[in-house]
Amino acid sequence: MRKLLIVLGLCKLSIISFAQNEDSMMIRHIADEILVNGKAYDNLHDLTKNIGGRLTGSPQMYKAEAWGQKAMNVSGADKVWLQECKVPHWIRGGKDEASFNVKMKKNPAKLDVIALGNSIGTGPKGVSAEVIEVRSFDELEAKKEEIKGKIVFYNYKFNPTFIRTFLSYADAVQYRGYGPSRAAKYGAVAVIVRSMTHSTDNIPHTGATRYNDSLPKIPAIAVGLKDADLLDSILQKQKISVFIKTNGQFLPDTIGHNVIGELTGTEFPGEIITVGGHLDSWDPAEGAHDDGAGVVQTMEVLRTLKALGYHPRHTIRFVLFANEENGTRGADKYAEEAKAKNEKHIFALETDAGGFTPRGFGFTGSPEQMARLRSWIPLLIPYGVYEIEDGGGGADIDPLNKALNTPMSELAPDTQRYFDYHHARTDVFENVNKRELELGAINMAALIYLVDKYGL
Amino acid sequence: MRKLLIVLGLCKLSIISFAQNEDSMMIRHIADEILVNGKAYDNLHDLTKNIGGRLTGSPQMYKAEAWGQKAMNVSGADKVWLQECKVPHWIRGGKDEASFNVKMKKNPAKLDVIALGNSIGTGPKGVSAEVIEVRSFDELEAKKEEIKGKIVFYNYKFNPTFIRTFLSYADAVQYRGYGPSRAAKYGAVAVIVRSMTHSTDNIPHTGATRYNDSLPKIPAIAVGLKDADLLDSILQKQKISVFIKTNGQFLPDTIGHNVIGELTGTEFPGEIITVGGHLDSWDPAEGAHDDGAGVVQTMEVLRTLKALGYHPRHTIRFVLFANEENGTRGADKYAEEAKAKNEKHIFALETDAGGFTPRGFGFTGSPEQMARLRSWIPLLIPYGVYEIEDGGGGADIDPLNKALNTPMSELAPDTQRYFDYHHARTDVFENVNKRELELGAINMAALIYLVDKYGL
Repeated sequence: MRKLLIVLGLCKLSIISFAQNEDSMMIRHIADEILVNGKAYDNLHDLTKNIGGRLTGSPQMYKAEAWGQKAMNVSGADKVWLQECKVPHWIRGGKDEASFNVKMKKNPAKLDVIALGNSIGTGPKGVSAEVIEVRSFDELEAKKEEIKGKIVFYNYKFNPTFIRTFLSYADAVQYRGYGPSRAAKYGAVAVIVRSMTHSTDNIPHTGATRYNDSLPKIPAIAVGLKDADLLDSILQKQKISVFIKTNGQFLPDTIGHNVIGELTGTEFPGEIITVGGHLDSWDPAEGAHDDGAGVVQTMEVLRTLKALGYHPRHTIRFVLFANEENGTRGADKYAEEAKAKNEKHIFALETDAGGFTPRGFGFTGSPEQMARLRSWIPLLIPYGVYEIEDGGGGADIDPLNKALNTPMSELAPDTQRYFDYHHARTDVFENVNKRELELGAINMAALIYLVDKYGL
Repeated sequence: MRKLLIVLGLCKLSIISFAQNEDSMMIRHIADEILVNGKAYDNLHDLTKNIGGRLTGSPQMYKAEAWGQKAMNVSGADKVWLQECKVPHWIRGGKDEASFNVKMKKNPAKLDVIALGNSIGTGPKGVSAEVIEVRSFDELEAKKEEIKGKIVFYNYKFNPTFIRTFLSYADAVQYRGYGPSRAAKYGAVAVIVRSMTHSTDNIPHTGATRYNDSLPKIPAIAVGLKDADLLDSILQKQKISVFIKTNGQFLPDTIGHNVIGELTGTEFPGEIITVGGHLDSWDPAEGAHDDGAGVVQTMEVLRTLKALGYHPRHTIRFVLFANEENGTRGADKYAEEAKAKNEKHIFALETDAGGFTPRGFGFTGSPEQMARLRSWIPLLIPYGVYEIEDGGGGADIDPLNKALNTPMSELAPDTQRYFDYHHARTDVFENVNKRELELGAINMAALIYLVDKYGL
């Protein structure tokens, strides 16, 4: 009996090791295809240089949708369609400006600034007021009596001691998101926010702010780190007034689209795996890392599976989501329609953390599903992925997870450089490395292959 | 008895977990010190911008030695000294040039080239000859009758399918190292080598060539990938001659120095741990990744241990090695003197793979030592290091390992971008990321701390 068990055990072992060997060979084929014939980098060049920034509602958004539709066809989708959704239409409206006068100097000093996304403009005459600096919301509250009629300068530092820089972002982004309304509550006339970055340059970073509709909406700009430190050092010694001119406004909502490509499943066509990134991007740059990288990686997964002649068991949807940056209406629409049509979604994978060298995936699902994912790590280690972290998803697949309890995952690349470029004019093609971008696509394709083959 | 064992077991467990907790706190302190007060990036700026390329024998080499000595003192070494060694003195001697004529075009087309390090110049008149392309040494052998009087163009591609790019380098670098002499054997008058890179630009990469002294020494240049592909495409259709002018020569050997700083051990002053990188660099750029990064990381380990008031049990030597790029005479001298003085070297750590985000260490030592190192991985994972690979060391500590059997290790950062910059004029400060550089220093300091505390 014992012998039989051993023999059975060996059989099982050899079946497992045969399967693992087969998987490891398949993933090697995926890697070779991407590293030798990859199109992600060329596609990114095309998207960033021929279209550029793709803010929701802008003419570039429509160009990007048409581009995505075409690229999805070229990459080999069985079907490609646009999924319509109503989207907000914020425009920057002109050049953002800010300057200040220092005693004894004749000319005003310029600040390198960018208006926060969704923020209201100052009007053509601008706004000029004394600046009051606070380093936290606690300090704002402590100084609430002094705020009226002033410009609040949130000088909250991006914490350098978090190794994963998204934690520094999560810690600091509240000042961009809620700072304007919290200052408006005490009568501030505008807000300056220290950029959410640890970059060594002085470039300001934009991103969405969220007004509280019950409070006055005041203009809000970001400054880079050197200007933030400059303001701080001057304010230690003297009072200053800053002049701000911004031109942001909301036009009426308009129509945008998720671009969707599909490889139809051979065994379970009604069971859907989603993989995607977002097509829109902030306007100051080319949206190369955020999220051009995710867009072209998504299409690279499609192209690669097709090029290798892989026929998925489940239906795989490749989605370029609309309006992630200032509304997530594309994501909401995708989830809403999935629910309305009673679709079965077995897994969703998002890529929206930059085209950097991969380190892992995040995952939200059951402990059993997590255990299965982690059992695949040995297959991914040769390609740089060594951990599946608890928690994971992203703005574009969270609604699907909420609506249908779909297990969800996100590619987790190295985070050290992400906030150097995030929402800044340096988020350009030249700052993306071809091989790092490709390694991300390799690991995504490998994970999609494994989920498709074994289920979750 | 069983109970006692359990109690003892629990004690042991809690001692281990207390020690691990203590270590994890110490490494957290190391990380905070480097991320908040780090000097590596500023030091790198100083070295690269105020001194620049530091080829052995050049005036910049001497400047860098003086700089290193001073920086070592500032960083807090107990003693600092220079270790003299005889070094080769190759000079580029002027601008490297190459051009070719294509039928029907009036003006010659220029190639962007750089002479290989250690290569002999063409003389002021240059050399002009028909080009014969080979894609491998096998093809060279097959065409050996056609080589005489020609310029051999080695167009061997940097293999994109290796995930670790050092494997692509190990695979391709033989054409730079041995190509000139192997071509000279069959009467070639010069050599053009496709650069050892997968960069997307056209910038040529230099590096040492190694002549066989029994064969004629012929000039040798590298071309970037676009020029290599251009030559290849033209040569498919027509014969072409290329004109090459280079000016390299060896001057008589001169004197260089290893710069050494020391923290003297409190318990075992006679047992030495070495940590280092190399101070010299190729001349076309600033030697920022190769190996300015290693230099400043080495000093950052010193500065950090000192700043934290850590008194090492063993003596720790921080070494900026001379002449790694074209002779390794500094490394040889260090090992030679260690042996002559009968020093006890318990561990050596090298950092010479660029200032990129860390992924692991390589290690050469006994299986027991390897097991000990691997038992520390959980302490390093939060800082990005998740593997200790078999094999490791580097040109600057290999001689020590050979002479005294010293266990040796090297920092293994992510390799995707390294060969974009390696030995090319793009190896400049701007291409080093502050936090990636710092994370390397954190892991190095952590490993040195662990080896010092527990031995190997």
